[in-house]
Amino acid sequence: MQHAGLASPMTPPGGRPADFQIKFRISDIMTEHSLWRFSRALHGAINDRQSKDLEELIDEEVDWAIYGPIDMFPFLGARRGKAAVIEVIRQIADNVRVHRFDRESILLGVDSAASMLRYSLTALDSNKPISLRLAHFAQFKAGRLSSLRVVIDTFDLVEQALGRPIHLPKIAS
Amino acid sequence: MQHAGLASPMTPPGGRPADFQIKFRISDIMTEHSLWRFSRALHGAINDRQSKDLEELIDEEVDWAIYGPIDMFPFLGARRGKAAVIEVIRQIADNVRVHRFDRESILLGVDSAASMLRYSLTALDSNKPISLRLAHFAQFKAGRLSSLRVVIDTFDLVEQALGRPIHLPKIAS
Repeated sequence: MQHAGLASPMTPPGGRPADFQIKFRISDIMTEHSLWRFSRALHGAINDRQSKDLEELIDEEVDWAIYGPIDMFPFLGARRGKAAVIEVIRQIADNVRVHRFDRESILLGVDSAASMLRYSLTALDSNKPISLRLAHFAQFKAGRLSSLRVVIDTFDLVEQALGRPIHLPKIAS
Repeated sequence: MQHAGLASPMTPPGGRPADFQIKFRISDIMTEHSLWRFSRALHGAINDRQSKDLEELIDEEVDWAIYGPIDMFPFLGARRGKAAVIEVIRQIADNVRVHRFDRESILLGVDSAASMLRYSLTALDSNKPISLRLAHFAQFKAGRLSSLRVVIDTFDLVEQALGRPIHLPKIAS
């Protein structure tokens, strides 16, 4: 009963809960992919304005690019270095709130990850719902984000942000 | 000298060139990722209208989607099954020619692959050069493409196809 405070669904029946918890934590640190920690910290930074966790997960020399029309969305485009990336994430947090995201495809390497995501956002200035599809490629160095490239279905994004369709000629046969 | 016709940079010095060539070929077939074969066949089908190789590399039940404005580009969108995919690749071949592509990021799994690519194309109807960035996620079954998802920086594509910028309001702070 002296271990009751440590008991959890992770405690093996009849085992030594304290030892097991330590092992579980070490194994957790060793096996969790950097993407999951980064993803939690990024979404925390966007929705809760909490960038402390994120700062520890970004390399000083990070190379960052989200391709898209920067005239309309100044928080898209390229950034270099941790301070610039923290600042641009703050700008993203000023403009959108994440309601939900679904990871439709994912590939993990040892220090890299690529996924395709569908986001449900709200544009904070207009209170408009925005549904966004993007693909990202991330590289990590010692658990910190060292490179991020994001491709977005930007025409769809622009039409939703404008709130009206853009008339397009049919150009193909 | 009787092996001179088989000599190549792959021939080991003093080795048995014919045997070595056979081994090299088998090892090549076994280790080449399905992505490379599919990529060669796809580009052959687009530029040379040669779809025979490609037909052997597409699963009958293939699930295919290139996200983008289908009003302007009817060859974008979703397709299901080999016949529909072969047909849409023929439509793509009717509309563009690939000059060059650079694979900027890549992640390979056993039966899957994701990459970010930058293409230099010509739109055949207008003879306009088009520069395109996209990300794809592909899955293979027994060496054949079973699923493909492509995200394109579509706003940039639309502006290039129109040949003029679309005026956008600045919506973000």
